[in-house]
Amino acid sequence: MSQIKALTFDVFGTVVDWRSSVAREAEAVLGPKGHRLDWAGFADRWRARYVPSMARVRRGERPFVILDDLHRENLLELLAESGVTNLDPVEVDGLNRVWHRLDPSPDVVDGLARLKRGFILSSLSNGNVALMVNLAKRAGLPWDVILGAEVARAYKPAAEAYDRTASMLQLEPCECLMVAAHAQDLRAAAGRGFHTAYVHRADEFGPSQADRPWPSDAFDYRVSSFFELADRLGLDS
Amino acid sequence: MSQIKALTFDVFGTVVDWRSSVAREAEAVLGPKGHRLDWAGFADRWRARYVPSMARVRRGERPFVILDDLHRENLLELLAESGVTNLDPVEVDGLNRVWHRLDPSPDVVDGLARLKRGFILSSLSNGNVALMVNLAKRAGLPWDVILGAEVARAYKPAAEAYDRTASMLQLEPCECLMVAAHAQDLRAAAGRGFHTAYVHRADEFGPSQADRPWPSDAFDYRVSSFFELADRLGLDS
Repeated sequence: MSQIKALTFDVFGTVVDWRSSVAREAEAVLGPKGHRLDWAGFADRWRARYVPSMARVRRGERPFVILDDLHRENLLELLAESGVTNLDPVEVDGLNRVWHRLDPSPDVVDGLARLKRGFILSSLSNGNVALMVNLAKRAGLPWDVILGAEVARAYKPAAEAYDRTASMLQLEPCECLMVAAHAQDLRAAAGRGFHTAYVHRADEFGPSQADRPWPSDAFDYRVSSFFELADRLGLDS
Repeated sequence: MSQIKALTFDVFGTVVDWRSSVAREAEAVLGPKGHRLDWAGFADRWRARYVPSMARVRRGERPFVILDDLHRENLLELLAESGVTNLDPVEVDGLNRVWHRLDPSPDVVDGLARLKRGFILSSLSNGNVALMVNLAKRAGLPWDVILGAEVARAYKPAAEAYDRTASMLQLEPCECLMVAAHAQDLRAAAGRGFHTAYVHRADEFGPSQADRPWPSDAFDYRVSSFFELADRLGLDS
């Protein structure tokens, strides 16, 4: 593993906790407008539209558009489905920007600071550049570089998302370690020659899913926090 | 100026001192191979080929290629012109990578740390992503995001280099402040609606050019260091 030079990170669910942040902000925006919804469920339903909406881009059924635009289309559908008809476009935009304001998991900021001493830290998210910048600025995420879908013009798990990221870093895929809480992302990265680190995020899908099993895949690392990853990569605390 | 949200930086000559770094490394590589050259002059002659080589891309005479590739082509011409024929391709690559190892000006690291408290800091250089990442990692440059020619697929002073950078940040051009030691870069940025800050780098072209005049343009800021820029932007030291 001494060949690893860069750590490339999935962000939603791996670095930041989308579920609680989205639920909290949805309640803060929609509650005062008279709505009483299952807010965590609202977050889950918004998130559930994410993969299908990107798949249409990946299949070439529509040109590449950034994730903010997909999120907004999905939000409009979700609001209609939820009977919310009293938001104006500026309020919709404001709620859509909740994805720029997600909170990091508790181990993330200090864990990344340790990892940064030994490696290039790059985001490799399907989120667009401005979203990643705003998220990092607010949460204090010390990326060396923001790469991913908008720069690569391809959504994970498409091969081009991984290939173009390694290429822009002028690294071989085997010099990159993909860090994610999602087996599908890691399997795709491994298929392009990346090393892989699975981080188990028990809370990502809420308490009812907290005891779901770890994937059985033979990833290079299987850890329960960024601290444990830093330990395994030989970085002092 | 309260509308400014991001500072976008020229890098070569504004953030890092290319001339002394390139001269030093050229001597370190070529001296032991038996060459006695004017090393600062070697740096100047390499740099002089930079603008014409990018201009061919800007005029559409060749497809976009990253700056590392232009630097290497220019280096091969310069070595031939200098009578250097005893470098193998790996040694040429190593020397070409000197642009990934340039030293920052003395005010840069602490100045950027101050500026980072108030603004998004983005590189907006003609250097490619890996070059910018390696430069920043080595020198401790705390960019929030690395943008510029490779991401925009356009070399400054082409309009697209500025337009696409603001667009990826989801900012209006007037929310961006271009920071550069070069009037031409700032004029082009102003032409696209950016605010402008001129930083005078007396040493960029060596001692013989140290008392060259400041440009007469009415840039929004005209400063002699990143510290002075931080002062002018109201950031505490």
